[in-house]
Amino acid sequence: MLEAAGPRLTALITQTEDRLTTVSSGHGAELTAHAHSTLEAGGKRLRPILVCLCAAPGDGPPVVSAAVAVELLHMATLVHDDVLDRAALRRGHPTVYAQAGRRAATATGDFLFSRAFAELAAESNPHSVAVLSEASSALARGELMQRADAWRAVSQERYLERCRLKTARLFEAACRLGAISGGRPDAADALGAFGAGIGLAFQLLDDVLDIEGPPERTGKPRGTDLLDGTVTLPLILAAQWDPALDITAGRSGADAVAFTCDRVAATGALAEVRRRALGFVSEAKGCLADLDLGGGESRALELVADGVVARYA
Amino acid sequence: MLEAAGPRLTALITQTEDRLTTVSSGHGAELTAHAHSTLEAGGKRLRPILVCLCAAPGDGPPVVSAAVAVELLHMATLVHDDVLDRAALRRGHPTVYAQAGRRAATATGDFLFSRAFAELAAESNPHSVAVLSEASSALARGELMQRADAWRAVSQERYLERCRLKTARLFEAACRLGAISGGRPDAADALGAFGAGIGLAFQLLDDVLDIEGPPERTGKPRGTDLLDGTVTLPLILAAQWDPALDITAGRSGADAVAFTCDRVAATGALAEVRRRALGFVSEAKGCLADLDLGGGESRALELVADGVVARYA
Repeated sequence: MLEAAGPRLTALITQTEDRLTTVSSGHGAELTAHAHSTLEAGGKRLRPILVCLCAAPGDGPPVVSAAVAVELLHMATLVHDDVLDRAALRRGHPTVYAQAGRRAATATGDFLFSRAFAELAAESNPHSVAVLSEASSALARGELMQRADAWRAVSQERYLERCRLKTARLFEAACRLGAISGGRPDAADALGAFGAGIGLAFQLLDDVLDIEGPPERTGKPRGTDLLDGTVTLPLILAAQWDPALDITAGRSGADAVAFTCDRVAATGALAEVRRRALGFVSEAKGCLADLDLGGGESRALELVADGVVARYA
Repeated sequence: MLEAAGPRLTALITQTEDRLTTVSSGHGAELTAHAHSTLEAGGKRLRPILVCLCAAPGDGPPVVSAAVAVELLHMATLVHDDVLDRAALRRGHPTVYAQAGRRAATATGDFLFSRAFAELAAESNPHSVAVLSEASSALARGELMQRADAWRAVSQERYLERCRLKTARLFEAACRLGAISGGRPDAADALGAFGAGIGLAFQLLDDVLDIEGPPERTGKPRGTDLLDGTVTLPLILAAQWDPALDITAGRSGADAVAFTCDRVAATGALAEVRRRALGFVSEAKGCLADLDLGGGESRALELVADGVVARYA
């Protein structure tokens, strides 16, 4: 995916990685160790890639700062999530929580959060700070909404609103920040809508995978959402088609969860959610149509959109 | 304290309170409820008072934004601390953690954190964002240092460095932000040093109180630092003067903690730490000497400095 978008993207992402290593150093031995282990666990760097692809060729440093800021914010939420989930591993690496406990991991998350804003502040664009802080507020609101909805049947509209807040807003922010810091402020709305669409697709497909597995592929047991009472779209649809389905199966242990996952799959709900995710990807690509990005860049963004789906195909 | 500093301060603090209520609303029912309950638990608003007193008369809105941002960041750390301490009450009010659980409370803290930066971004001063994010990074670093030092004898220097990071840097940031947003950029360093000094005194006196009690006055049992392995200056000094003193008494239960608190007091360490705190207050006041703030404002800042001590007298 990276190679297809050409040497410019490769160069920006390399600078982003270097800068991520630098900004997480120099704040004491403990923080450096924890931040580095979070960084080294890697990830797809999907959000920084979006930042870089939404920027016009030219302005390097502000674009790299925006890419770094978005990834730092994303990492901060992962570190806090691992504390809340008491997770031992992430992407096969021991989590900060597992290595250093919940206090150190909470502080590490707060630190990464702070560095995200410090990074944007250094580029002197208050508008960028506003975009990131709004996205970050949305993440927190989505998490709270998910808690408030736990164990309850929710409407599809409410589910989608939660996905927008919890996931799509940061994808949207990545694209907006790329446009703003990369000399394309007029394209910020359209690119933001593109980002929101693929973020939504990303979350829907993640929710499909949680039910579908298999664990060898996803790296986690099936039905983790069921276990903490998070009612996702596959479950919402399946419960409409199979009214005896127990959306609170997570309270009855692993066997009930496995049984419910199979039963959701049997309704055809997973295929339907996948179909809707593809719809969001298509709409997202539509947002690019009216922009004059140049063929190569438009194509690269479409490749990222397809990549989000392909991950789950 | 407020009244003595005159109607201008009272007006700014009233605007700060109003704005704190506004910024914590409009992000969904759950967040509004949690953020409001945190706000309503009150507090002395010491940091916003410092912001307002360090600003020159005139520029209202940027000063209020800075005051709001500093208080939001402070509140965010309190909400996260309550999760980590599994605290049921803060200032006599049920904590967000107690009311809504650790997920909701962690998200509420992240939200307050985000709003702090959003507030500064709205005032379009990237330098302010940098000051706040550096202070916030320092807080996280201080917390991690405290974890790394737990149950261990540390040097006085290391203890003071921890206090600087964990507490004094946000007091310093409050004064700097007041100066920057309030039309006194040239006084930012001196006012920052003033803030750092009283922040340090604040932490030292807090550590005295933790050992001294009494619980009816502090609202918490004696020796909470001992219980989680935090070795503070009273303990460091007492252990030098009474080598049999057990700095890990927190591992042996409530009776051992009470015994150790009494034993620390018997060494005279509490009086010595109080004396050093007064020294930091005096140095802080010295930072004001070369500034041409106008007698009323200088006097008001000195009153705040005295107020920090008086709280513990």
